[in-house]
This record gives sequence, structure tokens and C-alpha cells, in this order.
Amino acid sequence: MITAPTLIIDEQKCRANIRRMAKKAADNGIDFRPHFKTHQSLEIGRWNKESGIKKIAVSSIQMARYFAPEWDDITIAFPVNIREIENINSLAASISLNLCIENMESLQYLKKNLTSNVGFFLKIDVGYHRTGLDPSKIDFLQTLLKEAASSPRLTFRGFLGHAGHSYKCRSRDEVISLHNESTQLMTRLKAIFADTYPDVIVSLGDTPSSSMADDFSGIDELRPGNYVFYDLMQQQIGSCTVEEIAVAMACPIVARHRDRSEYVIHGGAVHLSKEAMDHRGLKTYGIVAEMEDHGWGNMIPEIFIKSLSQEHGIVSVPDAVFEEYKVGDLLYILPVHSCLTANLAKEYLSTTGRIIEKFH
Amino acid sequence: MITAPTLIIDEQKCRANIRRMAKKAADNGIDFRPHFKTHQSLEIGRWNKESGIKKIAVSSIQMARYFAPEWDDITIAFPVNIREIENINSLAASISLNLCIENMESLQYLKKNLTSNVGFFLKIDVGYHRTGLDPSKIDFLQTLLKEAASSPRLTFRGFLGHAGHSYKCRSRDEVISLHNESTQLMTRLKAIFADTYPDVIVSLGDTPSSSMADDFSGIDELRPGNYVFYDLMQQQIGSCTVEEIAVAMACPIVARHRDRSEYVIHGGAVHLSKEAMDHRGLKTYGIVAEMEDHGWGNMIPEIFIKSLSQEHGIVSVPDAVFEEYKVGDLLYILPVHSCLTANLAKEYLSTTGRIIEKFH
Repeated sequence: MITAPTLIIDEQKCRANIRRMAKKAADNGIDFRPHFKTHQSLEIGRWNKESGIKKIAVSSIQMARYFAPEWDDITIAFPVNIREIENINSLAASISLNLCIENMESLQYLKKNLTSNVGFFLKIDVGYHRTGLDPSKIDFLQTLLKEAASSPRLTFRGFLGHAGHSYKCRSRDEVISLHNESTQLMTRLKAIFADTYPDVIVSLGDTPSSSMADDFSGIDELRPGNYVFYDLMQQQIGSCTVEEIAVAMACPIVARHRDRSEYVIHGGAVHLSKEAMDHRGLKTYGIVAEMEDHGWGNMIPEIFIKSLSQEHGIVSVPDAVFEEYKVGDLLYILPVHSCLTANLAKEYLSTTGRIIEKFH
Repeated sequence: MITAPTLIIDEQKCRANIRRMAKKAADNGIDFRPHFKTHQSLEIGRWNKESGIKKIAVSSIQMARYFAPEWDDITIAFPVNIREIENINSLAASISLNLCIENMESLQYLKKNLTSNVGFFLKIDVGYHRTGLDPSKIDFLQTLLKEAASSPRLTFRGFLGHAGHSYKCRSRDEVISLHNESTQLMTRLKAIFADTYPDVIVSLGDTPSSSMADDFSGIDELRPGNYVFYDLMQQQIGSCTVEEIAVAMACPIVARHRDRSEYVIHGGAVHLSKEAMDHRGLKTYGIVAEMEDHGWGNMIPEIFIKSLSQEHGIVSVPDAVFEEYKVGDLLYILPVHSCLTANLAKEYLSTTGRIIEKFH
């Protein structure tokens, strides 16, 4: 029996999400390197292997070390943290490890301190303006590559970008437009460097673009992460349907307050995270789905988390359905941002009652 | 050497915070039952014992089980989750366990299913309107107590409230005014029930009120949690000085973007949480403090985290000090809400280089 807040995974939905994206990449003739920062689980990683996936991305050296026993080609899709040089050298001695470089300081530090061979990508800012090199500054890119070329430890793999600004889009047209801009910009870069580096690739792939685009020409490698679970934010952007969301947080109801049309659940910021989104003109931290014998069914947009503190969730419930749930019942909550919710979980529980381990 | 985002604790500041609050409670002749949900650490718990503390509060049965080997009087200051009945019975067989009740359903379930003796508080809504019973509905409180009285397993301990709306205050006067309202309301309740239940107590104590109030007459037990570390939000409310904040997140700088006056750090929502606050008219997720040989010094209000994603933090840095930090340096970040930041950490590192274990 579920007694405490528990992150439930619908294995069928999750496997279908993996297969769909792997097929899309294969149909378009591009490599698929899923970002495992979302699920952080060796077992879910194995479901990916069944779709023929051989390479992954992660967001830290710690996560790379967790996956290294089962994956021998890993890109840390995060600006290299040079303080981790010992872990980088030790991991790169046993697997094919790719780093992201976006400044001369890190590059020179690596040149001096690498004892193992690594691949590297130049991290390009495709318009998100979070990290990455300005793609218009060709001279500086050339300077970096020239500096790297004299190191026997560093192999240039290509240009890597993340169009994270697609998360702010709220229509397919907006997402496709960003996707096309990013792709054109990266393709142009690749063309400029093609003579000197004929094998370099373009790696792209935020979840909205990967889910909604049909044209991937110019892209060599797709790198989405969130698609494995999806969530309410992705559904709002248009990346998925509600039915494709593969995780829900089961939370016990501990109190009901009819006078203000609220339930109180055990399920707070330490379970769901404080990520919020707009919902019918209000803020929400998660929306309830119908509970079924094994898992959950339709979303009930009228029943949603209106506020969260450390362990409490306050759920808004219309009067008409107030009596449908009692103290001691579970509510299944679809998360706003599954990456942050999954990160907070120690493990997953499948809808068939099986524990699925994860990095924690 | 610190290589990854690491939550640093200044043991001296933390011990001083514990001693100060314990002394304040003792000086006022009231019991001190600190809420351990903030630090979640057996070792920090032991520092409390040195100040003579014998009772604690936690927010879940899981946390109660973690502390039970060293604490034999624990209140779960959260509406009882009846799905946990087995864990409740088993824990209450070995320690003195107090629950919070705020509805008839939970009470009747406990009456029927308790096999061990527990104490209970009636959780009172002192104006926060998150959970708790309406203190004006004396008849219903009497009905609940009458229902409980026929159970040999249930002992009524008193009235428990949490003035969480004090977190919205931004001045001492506002906090004191709320504190006085809550205290009066609880004292009135106690007086009403004094004849029938002469031993019942009033338990209160959010961190702002506990830190700022001087008059605690009418209160029998003080129950703050956040005071052990404090944080930027508490400093903004007025509960503490910046110098009293006892934790900071050390984050490596991985990139610098001079054109937009930003550093990129490894340090994101999975390290600090997405809790934000206003800072000079902008939103911030943490403010940098000067690094010192062992720990940190003054806050640098000009250098602050302006946005966070899963693992990235984007730090706003004025041009005048841009060159003070390099790629590979650490930044010490004072957290907005230390409870959520501490919850995300697997352990603490003391400023003297010692690992301090915690519940995780």
C-alpha cells in the first residue's frame, strides 16, 4: 500500500515515449542521444537500449559515473566544470566521454591537466542566452579550435546547442520557428568548418522541438530528455498529450476544508518542487488525474494544487466533486515539471507495484 | 577540494542560533521543541541536546523514524496521515509520539486502529488558513475531544498552531501583531478547556515570531525550525541578520559572459530549489557572499542568482567586479529558503571540512 508521497511511473507510457522518439530519430536518419537527467535511472536506461540507443547525455560528472557501468558513450551536456578534472580523467579512461567547452580558460585548463582522451563539443548559444558561444564570432571559434588542436587528448566532435527558449513557446508555430532558426544557425557553422573538420556533427534537441518538428535536416544528433516522462508544462507547450505523461505523484489526503473548497495533501515542495505554471488564470503546482486500478486516467483540470509549502499541498476542489475524495484517499498529481519532480524522488514505483531504482 | 555544488554549514553560527533560541525559551519559562524538518540531521540534533533540548517536532513519520534512535519525544507537526497507521503504531510502541488531529475522520480511524498509545494535539488554524480547525467552533472542538476521550490509546496534549502567514510579513511590527493575535486566540482556547483538561498546553512558534517576539506569555511550547540556519527570506522578514545565516551553497563557476554581465554556475534548482524572492526590484534565487579561508563573510548584494534551471544558475555580476571571479572559482550562495535547500542536500560539509550526515 502507498502510505507516503510516491512518484508513480506508467511503464507502458514511458516505453512508448522512448520508442516514439527513437523511431522519429531513426526515420530521419539521425543519431539519438537521449538526455538522462530527467529519469536518472539505470533501469529506464535499459528500456532505451531495447530501442537500439547506444549513446546518452547527462548533466554532471556524478550522473555520468552513475550510468557508466552500462553506457560507454556519454556526453556531459553542461559547460565543463574544471574542478572535476580528477573525476573526468578517471571516467574518460574507461568510457568514451564528451565534454562541452565554451571558453578559453576551461580549454587551456583541460589541455594542461587531461591525462585521458576526451571528445569535446563547442557549446553554441542558439538564442536561449543561458550558456554557449556566440555563433557569429567565427574568429573566436577558430581560435578555440586551434588551441585545442595542439592537444593530443582533445578531439573535436562538433557543435552542441540547446534551444531552451522553446519552453517559453505556447504554440507549435513558435516552436517550429525556433527550431528552424537553431538548425539553420548550426548548419551554417558546420558548413564553415567542414573543410577543416569534415567529421564534426550538429547536436540539438530540446523536448518541444524534438516532439513537434518533422524536419530535422542539418541535424546529426538529437538530445531531448523530458520526452521520456513529459509533464503539464510540455502539454501546455504542445509537445505531448495529457495521455502521454508517464509519471504522477500519489499523495495522501490528510484534511479537507469545505468552507474554502480545499483538500490538504501530504505532498509539498520537497516532493513536487516549487515549479509552477499558469492554469486557467491561476498558478498551479500540479493537476489531479482520475485514479484507476493500476495507474491513472483522465486529467481533472478543476482539481489542482494551488499552493505548496515544504510538505503540504493545498488542492483546490470544486464543491460539486468535494465528496468524491475522503481523508486517507490518494490523489494522483500530474507534475508541472517532471525533471525536478523526478529528481526529488528516491525511487519510482511502477503502476504494477514494482520499485524502479534511480540515482539519488 | 570542493568540486560540485556543496551545502556548507558554519557550525559556530548554527550552534549560536540553537543556543540563542534555547536560551530565549528558557528565559521565558517555556518548553522548547525545535522543528527538525529544516536540518534533518542527527548530528545537528546532538548540538541541540547540548542546550538541554529533550523534545523535537518533525513533519513526517519517515523523519520521526530517522530521529527516533536518539529522541524519545517527537511530535509530527503535520495533520496525521492515517495511511501510515502501521508505522505510527510501531514507532509509538518505543517512543512518546504526538500526532496532530484536525478532523473527525482521522480521529475515528485512529480510535479504531491504534495499538500503541499516542498523544495528540488539536491543530488550530491561527489565521494562516493552510490547515487546522477553526478556533471559533468550540462545539466541534468539544465533539472531537469527547470522541477521543473514549479511546484508551489517545491522550490529549493541547492546541498546536503555526502562524505561517508571518512569512509574508516584512516588518517587526507586522510579525509581533500576528504573534499577539495567535497567542491570544490560543490562550482563549486553553482557558475554555482548562476545567476539563487542566494539563493541556499551547504549542506555537514559527521562526519569525520566535525570533522577533519578546513576550511569550500564554505559550507553553515553542516550535520554530528555520532559525537553526536562517536564510535570505528570514533576513528580509527581519528574523535574523545576514551574519546569522548558517548555510551557504558553494557552486563552481563554469562560464562567464561579459557581454551580458553574467556568470554561469553549476548550481541549479536541484541544489537550491526554485524558491525565489524579490531583491532590489528583481527576482533572486540566492545572493553571493564573500569567500573566506574557512567559510564566508559579507553578503555582496550586487552579485545574485537571477535565474535557475535544473543544474544551471545564472548569476548577475556588475561590470565593476566582473574580473574578481574566474572560471573554476567557487561562489558561496546564501539561500532564499534554507529548508528547501537543505532538503536537497545529501549531506553537509562544515567550514572546517567535516561531513555532517543528514536524512536523505
